[in-house]
Amino acid sequence: MERAAAPKKIGLIGLGLMGRPMGMNLLKAGHSLTVWNRTASRADELVAAGAKLAKSPQEAAAASEFLITMVSDPPALEEVLWGPGGAMQSLQRDCIYMDSSTISPALARKIAAACAERGARFLDAPVTGGDWGAKKGELLFMIGGDAATLKEAEPILGVMGKKWFHLGPHGAGQTVKLAMNLILALQIDALAEALALVTRAGLQGEKLVEVLQSSMARSGVLDIKAPNLLKGEYVPSFPLRLMHKDLGLALDLANQLGVPLPATAAARETYSAVKGAAQEDLDYSAVMKFWKA
Amino acid sequence: MERAAAPKKIGLIGLGLMGRPMGMNLLKAGHSLTVWNRTASRADELVAAGAKLAKSPQEAAAASEFLITMVSDPPALEEVLWGPGGAMQSLQRDCIYMDSSTISPALARKIAAACAERGARFLDAPVTGGDWGAKKGELLFMIGGDAATLKEAEPILGVMGKKWFHLGPHGAGQTVKLAMNLILALQIDALAEALALVTRAGLQGEKLVEVLQSSMARSGVLDIKAPNLLKGEYVPSFPLRLMHKDLGLALDLANQLGVPLPATAAARETYSAVKGAAQEDLDYSAVMKFWKA
Amino acid sequence: MERAAAPKKIGLIGLGLMGRPMGMNLLKAGHSLTVWNRTASRADELVAAGAKLAKSPQEAAAASEFLITMVSDPPALEEVLWGPGGAMQSLQRDCIYMDSSTISPALARKIAAACAERGARFLDAPVTGGDWGAKKGELLFMIGGDAATLKEAEPILGVMGKKWFHLGPHGAGQTVKLAMNLILALQIDALAEALALVTRAGLQGEKLVEVLQSSMARSGVLDIKAPNLLKGEYVPSFPLRLMHKDLGLALDLANQLGVPLPATAAARETYSAVKGAAQEDLDYSAVMKFWKA
Amino acid sequence: MERAAAPKKIGLIGLGLMGRPMGMNLLKAGHSLTVWNRTASRADELVAAGAKLAKSPQEAAAASEFLITMVSDPPALEEVLWGPGGAMQSLQRDCIYMDSSTISPALARKIAAACAERGARFLDAPVTGGDWGAKKGELLFMIGGDAATLKEAEPILGVMGKKWFHLGPHGAGQTVKLAMNLILALQIDALAEALALVTRAGLQGEKLVEVLQSSMARSGVLDIKAPNLLKGEYVPSFPLRLMHKDLGLALDLANQLGVPLPATAAARETYSAVKGAAQEDLDYSAVMKFWKA
Repeated sequence: MERAAAPKKIGLIGLGLMGRPMGMNLLKAGHSLTVWNRTASRADELVAAGAKLAKSPQEAAAASEFLITMVSDPPALEEVLWGPGGAMQSLQRDCIYMDSSTISPALARKIAAACAERGARFLDAPVTGGDWGAKKGELLFMIGGDAATLKEAEPILGVMGKKWFHLGPHGAGQTVKLAMNLILALQIDALAEALALVTRAGLQGEKLVEVLQSSMARSGVLDIKAPNLLKGEYVPSFPLRLMHKDLGLALDLANQLGVPLPATAAARETYSAVKGAAQEDLDYSAVMKFWKA
Repeated sequence: MERAAAPKKIGLIGLGLMGRPMGMNLLKAGHSLTVWNRTASRADELVAAGAKLAKSPQEAAAASEFLITMVSDPPALEEVLWGPGGAMQSLQRDCIYMDSSTISPALARKIAAACAERGARFLDAPVTGGDWGAKKGELLFMIGGDAATLKEAEPILGVMGKKWFHLGPHGAGQTVKLAMNLILALQIDALAEALALVTRAGLQGEKLVEVLQSSMARSGVLDIKAPNLLKGEYVPSFPLRLMHKDLGLALDLANQLGVPLPATAAARETYSAVKGAAQEDLDYSAVMKFWKA
Repeated sequence: MERAAAPKKIGLIGLGLMGRPMGMNLLKAGHSLTVWNRTASRADELVAAGAKLAKSPQEAAAASEFLITMVSDPPALEEVLWGPGGAMQSLQRDCIYMDSSTISPALARKIAAACAERGARFLDAPVTGGDWGAKKGELLFMIGGDAATLKEAEPILGVMGKKWFHLGPHGAGQTVKLAMNLILALQIDALAEALALVTRAGLQGEKLVEVLQSSMARSGVLDIKAPNLLKGEYVPSFPLRLMHKDLGLALDLANQLGVPLPATAAARETYSAVKGAAQEDLDYSAVMKFWKA
Repeated sequence: MERAAAPKKIGLIGLGLMGRPMGMNLLKAGHSLTVWNRTASRADELVAAGAKLAKSPQEAAAASEFLITMVSDPPALEEVLWGPGGAMQSLQRDCIYMDSSTISPALARKIAAACAERGARFLDAPVTGGDWGAKKGELLFMIGGDAATLKEAEPILGVMGKKWFHLGPHGAGQTVKLAMNLILALQIDALAEALALVTRAGLQGEKLVEVLQSSMARSGVLDIKAPNLLKGEYVPSFPLRLMHKDLGLALDLANQLGVPLPATAAARETYSAVKGAAQEDLDYSAVMKFWKA
């Protein structure tokens, strides 16, 4: 997991909660950065730190040896790649394009094929670790694609993350990411169901959490999210609307493959109900509101 | 969490995977132990170590200042307490009776009332920690009942466990235990769904587990059970039939209270399908077989 | 299937929405009727019409050649049979005892065994048709038990109902009844989900119902219950708490047999949520309130 | 509702189980028909009866005053409209284009907008009634779009169907169709769960069906499909893969709107499992195989 990276011309499309700190780390490591975002004002901080602002995804791609996209969902990515001013038409021969959005494995494979037609190389590389991991440069990347391409990308991955896993051919990164998020969504949903049960039975939710933390049920996500559920405070770290989208992508994949996922399907409906009733952007731990509406 | 226990006359009913090592620790700590089990041969090891074998639950209760039951389900406990030769009729005035089985909170409250009528004191005290925790004397007790009674029981709890939590009045221990098992059952079910998805997509399950162990989804239960799921080896540590029973008890409680538990309900049907198809006793991690049948 | 019935001494325990009109039809047919109900005032109308009021289930059973119970759930039936003043202890040798409550098949078999010990004959005979069917004497009976016993019971069945089906040994009537109610509960739940979908999409629910009534989805239950869902009026015909109980009994049976019922399990949680939030007694079509709370 | 239809130049794209008989009825009514199908041989019968075979969807659209599409799913429709040789580019000004496929309401609205740009008028008009209804000219159409356009289309609808319902603006037809199929899918799934329960309990499924047919649970779909489930014969009338697709479309719509559909979600996973294990094309009543695999 090397880190010494020769300065490169890097393009970064998508400057949300994750994209901005990723860009900042790339600048700090001495790379030349061209950025684009649908809402241009989100680029201010990066531009102030030395990034160039492109007028379109196309312009960002034209300027880059290494292109990264980090957008919220498959339609947003398709727009950025193939919409008016899209990046795909100006992707440089021999460049590496790495998508860190969470999308369907099928779309990852479609992008890989389009890149190959242009002589570019693709990696699907969704991440976990949250905005906090993005800031600290401690993201975990789940990679699908060619081993040699990954080898070449490692110095840049090392600027943004601390670990990466080569999981298989194109789409493998997305498949594992969807599987992971399914697990996280169900862990929080299970905690919410358990809290709803004990509190309706007249007990304190804090007691349940205290016992869980001494037990085999203890988990990273429990440590971080249990306070949200107990306090009913859901400032978005990973937004519920994105977790809900990822559950949809996981179920779409499973239904294409004919793999039944009964608990995931049940949980998606619970997340959906909370999303439907929400007036504001909420963390995914707000699935707890299903029992408090 | 004191441990120095004056030797007491203790009764122990139920000598399964958990009861036997609990009894052995009580003997080692110098207590006088009277035991009973439906299949008497299960008592051999304890008798060889100094325990007396009672002819009935009634006889075991009559001989005890402190009575413990550790049986597999509510009907087994009702039989032991109120069936022919049942313990309740000979429970000593002022004795403490502690049930460590997993049962419904309603049954725990019914037992507490029956004890009060006889002048005995009751604690519901289900445990977590598995047979390994029972052997090491490192169980975790979830306690419902009176604080003063718990105080008096602590020296004996300290022989079998390392932690205990006073969670509320009678039934509170069982309520929290059911909530905990709901979470454990869903954590394993979520892992099984995720593994089914990635393997059907052509990837290696081992890769998913490796990524999870570097992520927020890491948990105690993942560490211990993932190898079972990957190898397809399900020697019972906590039997699936008991986890399935506990999911039923959790859902019964929730349905009495009118608290919907959609993911738990979905998971119970998956456990049920595996139980229905199983030819042998399996660990609850065998829920994975739902996707391999 | 009607037959001329020689006047008999009949006992009837349980005078709710169903029991009262059943009793009235028995009186009209010329039978001698002894009744009992926990709340005695419910017997007034029948007593005015010629029924004798027993002081206990025991007294009702002692006076009867043919005993009928029609109570709300398994605990109520166990109380009536085996509680203080219970019917079982005075059941007449050679009498026929027919239970028309909806209970578990296991309890039906336990009752059959207890009857056999006393030389009495048992039929499990739950009904469908609602209070309207009870009034018109047009109930449908689902029978488990011995064919010869059923033959003997037919003249009395013919007074209360228009059809009966001999479905197998003891418990078979209850098994089929639970299967039928699972279907009715899911038909209404499916209609509620469909109405929630189209109305949230901005369309009129009435339009959906109009289309359904011209389609293969048309059903008896749709005809009768769709107006309730459209108007949001849920005066109990078959109470939601009883349908919720029956879903629980169906799932208990299925989980004992290891038969997964994913949609039934999902529906039960929806009914449970409505039950938990309800301030009053509602028809089971009020499951629609899950989407309007 | 039949009306005398002046002969028109009609295009028909999609000649599957439904499209072929629809085309035959249009020919019989004296209309001039141009057809196209991906597999051209499916047009043989219609060509023999007088239809012209177009070389592309584009050519079919260019020749038509009234264009009908009847394909299997949204991607197939997008290909036919916007793929190479697609119909949209040659849609005649002032023509009426009616899509009778089952697709998402969002795609219906997108098509309507594209038609408006070209000066053409669109109706979403999915059908129910099965291949049998298509042959007899007794389909039921669920219409979204403009009332005046529908008025003009009625003479042609009357050739293929016996009823049509104007349900609202573009997309309304598809919304109601998805709601209807959700109900049909759950009715069959409920029957399958009930049959699995009674047969595993040792009873005959035929008995359950006999009782149902005398009860409020009786429905059109029960009459037609119960024999399939009892015999285990699943020759496709409405293919399971299409019902599974429609459940996915219904859930997609509901999840966009934030409407939870727990039972529908559970049922989709069951259909998915059967689809995943199937070696051949099956009727949707084959969801029963979930319990027999």
